[in-house]
Amino acid sequence: EDSFTVAGRTFTSRLLVGTGKYKDYEQNARALEASGAEIITVAVRRVNLTDPDKPMLVDFIDPKKYTFLPNTAGCFTAEDAVRTLRLAREAGGWDLVKLEVLGDQKTLYPDMPETVRAAEMLLKEGFQVMVYCSDDPIQAKRLEEMGCCAIMPLGAPIGSGLGIQNPVNIRLIIEQANVPVLVDAGVGTASDAAIAMELGCDGVLMNTAIAEARDPILMARAMKAAVEAGRMAYLAGRMPKKKYADPSSPLGGLI
Amino acid sequence: EDSFTVAGRTFTSRLLVGTGKYKDYEQNARALEASGAEIITVAVRRVNLTDPDKPMLVDFIDPKKYTFLPNTAGCFTAEDAVRTLRLAREAGGWDLVKLEVLGDQKTLYPDMPETVRAAEMLLKEGFQVMVYCSDDPIQAKRLEEMGCCAIMPLGAPIGSGLGIQNPVNIRLIIEQANVPVLVDAGVGTASDAAIAMELGCDGVLMNTAIAEARDPILMARAMKAAVEAGRMAYLAGRMPKKKYADPSSPLGGLI
Amino acid sequence: EDSFTVAGRTFTSRLLVGTGKYKDYEQNARALEASGAEIITVAVRRVNLTDPDKPMLVDFIDPKKYTFLPNTAGCFTAEDAVRTLRLAREAGGWDLVKLEVLGDQKTLYPDMPETVRAAEMLLKEGFQVMVYCSDDPIQAKRLEEMGCCAIMPLGAPIGSGLGIQNPVNIRLIIEQANVPVLVDAGVGTASDAAIAMELGCDGVLMNTAIAEARDPILMARAMKAAVEAGRMAYLAGRMPKKKYADPSSPLGGLI
Amino acid sequence: EDSFTVAGRTFTSRLLVGTGKYKDYEQNARALEASGAEIITVAVRRVNLTDPDKPMLVDFIDPKKYTFLPNTAGCFTAEDAVRTLRLAREAGGWDLVKLEVLGDQKTLYPDMPETVRAAEMLLKEGFQVMVYCSDDPIQAKRLEEMGCCAIMPLGAPIGSGLGIQNPVNIRLIIEQANVPVLVDAGVGTASDAAIAMELGCDGVLMNTAIAEARDPILMARAMKAAVEAGRMAYLAGRMPKKKYADPSSPLGGLI
Repeated sequence: EDSFTVAGRTFTSRLLVGTGKYKDYEQNARALEASGAEIITVAVRRVNLTDPDKPMLVDFIDPKKYTFLPNTAGCFTAEDAVRTLRLAREAGGWDLVKLEVLGDQKTLYPDMPETVRAAEMLLKEGFQVMVYCSDDPIQAKRLEEMGCCAIMPLGAPIGSGLGIQNPVNIRLIIEQANVPVLVDAGVGTASDAAIAMELGCDGVLMNTAIAEARDPILMARAMKAAVEAGRMAYLAGRMPKKKYADPSSPLGGLI
Repeated sequence: EDSFTVAGRTFTSRLLVGTGKYKDYEQNARALEASGAEIITVAVRRVNLTDPDKPMLVDFIDPKKYTFLPNTAGCFTAEDAVRTLRLAREAGGWDLVKLEVLGDQKTLYPDMPETVRAAEMLLKEGFQVMVYCSDDPIQAKRLEEMGCCAIMPLGAPIGSGLGIQNPVNIRLIIEQANVPVLVDAGVGTASDAAIAMELGCDGVLMNTAIAEARDPILMARAMKAAVEAGRMAYLAGRMPKKKYADPSSPLGGLI
Repeated sequence: EDSFTVAGRTFTSRLLVGTGKYKDYEQNARALEASGAEIITVAVRRVNLTDPDKPMLVDFIDPKKYTFLPNTAGCFTAEDAVRTLRLAREAGGWDLVKLEVLGDQKTLYPDMPETVRAAEMLLKEGFQVMVYCSDDPIQAKRLEEMGCCAIMPLGAPIGSGLGIQNPVNIRLIIEQANVPVLVDAGVGTASDAAIAMELGCDGVLMNTAIAEARDPILMARAMKAAVEAGRMAYLAGRMPKKKYADPSSPLGGLI
Repeated sequence: EDSFTVAGRTFTSRLLVGTGKYKDYEQNARALEASGAEIITVAVRRVNLTDPDKPMLVDFIDPKKYTFLPNTAGCFTAEDAVRTLRLAREAGGWDLVKLEVLGDQKTLYPDMPETVRAAEMLLKEGFQVMVYCSDDPIQAKRLEEMGCCAIMPLGAPIGSGLGIQNPVNIRLIIEQANVPVLVDAGVGTASDAAIAMELGCDGVLMNTAIAEARDPILMARAMKAAVEAGRMAYLAGRMPKKKYADPSSPLGGLI
């Protein structure tokens, strides 16, 4: 069966989903189930993981059933990100993490030098680091060489739904990578996810595209199918594009 | 359950596949099964429907299990098309048909005046006519008004694999149509099929994209998933596109 | 010097402009001058050509200096179009005309069968017919074979400013044509016009892109430069696209 | 008159050209003249600036007439780049320079951390640094804050001719910049240059698109016109895009 392995763990679903923007944890849980995802990335600074007096994510989504991937959404410095992930490790024992260090509020693009610095600190502390990054192949390579276990280039600004803006860069990153490459951010609808997979990505992470669809549960199912479709199309090897029409068979052979 | 109805028959699969370019009827049958299609369009002038001394399509694909949709591939005049479909009706009793009258060999685009003329003749003889047409909304409307039971605009030249070239026109055709609209021709890979469905099409017909993939059976499965993904995404209502990033929650609320 | 010839008349400017949506005839005249156009297409049913008690177009734009190309904007039948152009011929002696027969108000796409019928009538009456048409290469060929002196496929809906939606079709039309091909409708900004010319068009006609720019006179100058740029790029023969970077010279040869 | 100012020098031409891939210095000089460029960027490590026994660039292109902008093409470390520009300053007194520190041979993308380090060193030594960078807005902002006098994001891999791959990023860089932004690398034909300018860039630098056109001199003229067209279209304020057609005037008002 088709699968991908990150930090020694093997997954068959190539769709990763988030925990932001849902109406409540219950809707989040239902979308997660509909998506077929095995990994849920958790915004540690936004999600209640520890206060038993309030609704807790783990009451709706079982960390034994799903891989929780703590992330550092909302962190703008390496120190903030590292502190956040230390808390997550203490709270749930999670050491496979998704690092994001943001550069500004308008784009929510990563601050790449801070990201590299944070990755260094986390790797030294024994974390397994999946890393949100720009689609710059040179920086992606550097993060891999440092020891990051997955490269997660952005397809478009977080929450924009614009789809992959620069397929050339995503392709270049994939061609050179020896660790999984997952497109993170930018997917808006099903075909965007299929396109990411057709480029050869190992997976796609999304949040807003599901949570802000008119019907998030149905969109979660759509995304499951889209990621599978794109993956199969990649493996099946698409037909070449042609400049002109190509009839089904020699027309001379007609009855 | 989600379905569409054409000429009084209801289908749950929105993927239609063809009979050209496969290695043999057996591969064609396996691709058909993998695709989940309920309708197979049959090039009457190319496929052996009547000579028992040669391999016959119906020995591999059961007309009781699948809806056979005879088509007029290779016909360049209304008379040729009508004659071809009369033969099909005599051979198998099929009166739900797909009309295509081609304009030239280089593009395999329809000759629209001949198509209109052929449609008139066929409708008069009691055929139910699904019609391959250009993506011109004015001509599509006319074909519907004449009584065609489905409009099948091209997405790109037959066999080109270029994907939908003019989504504006496909959208305009869908907005005005009261019969099913199915994109016919041009799909090259899974995301192309998803895009067609996200535009609001009722279905997609393809042949080369499956038959000329490196692994046609796997591509048939990919296309099944892609059409379902695109349809669900359409029904789920995609998120709006945004010019800038949109964080998962007010950053002011961070720890 | 680079030029194109239509109906025996030779023009060096490949930009054609219109008479709609301007504040007044004076602005129209200034935009025309800034555009460098030699041909101005005149909506006979909207522009005052005959009533001396109101401002007349010919008082601002000299028919001796510019080629007036009467058009049938607003006509939805062949008879209307023919009648309109007869009036124009009586009023100004113009027999080089631009035919458009519209199919509906939402798209302002041509009704192609009515267009063909009108073209037949006009050709019989000795008009030189430049014809607004869909981007269907089969229909474009037919119009040329009937004797139309220029083919004017739409790039996008009139007044939409969406740019050329289907470059594949425009290319196919150009490849087969023996008369000038001019993109008519759809241009929104300078690069759209350049793209049309790079495809090998003989010219571009536009109205809204200039008239509804914030500064119509400056946009007219922009369009002049864009059409020239696209034409020169077409003639100069662009570099091939490459999948990877290509350094300026062998890096081994560095100091 | 429209102009832009970098490091206190004002230019009216917004097209910058290079010195690579031409047949010889003479062709380079003729292309430069046809382009109308006032700035020529000189690959210090490839161009003969000092050896009087061989053809010298300055014998064909007069440094008093054109602004020579020495660049560090072929440098993969900050040290190499700095050394190269010191040589250039000694040779010709040039202190307005274009920095590029490459990350690998396949993409010729910049190594951004090395670029930042090199920029720091150069700024300390009093150079005026125009800097080739990725299209990452966060890194572009940092380079501006350090004191670089112009930001030069890539549109696509050097020499690829693919056109601007990520207009969203170029737009984001322009929106935040207080120094000139010039697209550097990726332009393949005239419309690509117009698109760059329509996004609001202050200028475009290109080399291969001119040098590897079939007719470099004519392409240089095309690019001159395209940059002017794009700039004027930007200043003129383009019409809004519309989903449907928009007639030239109320159809009710027809004759």
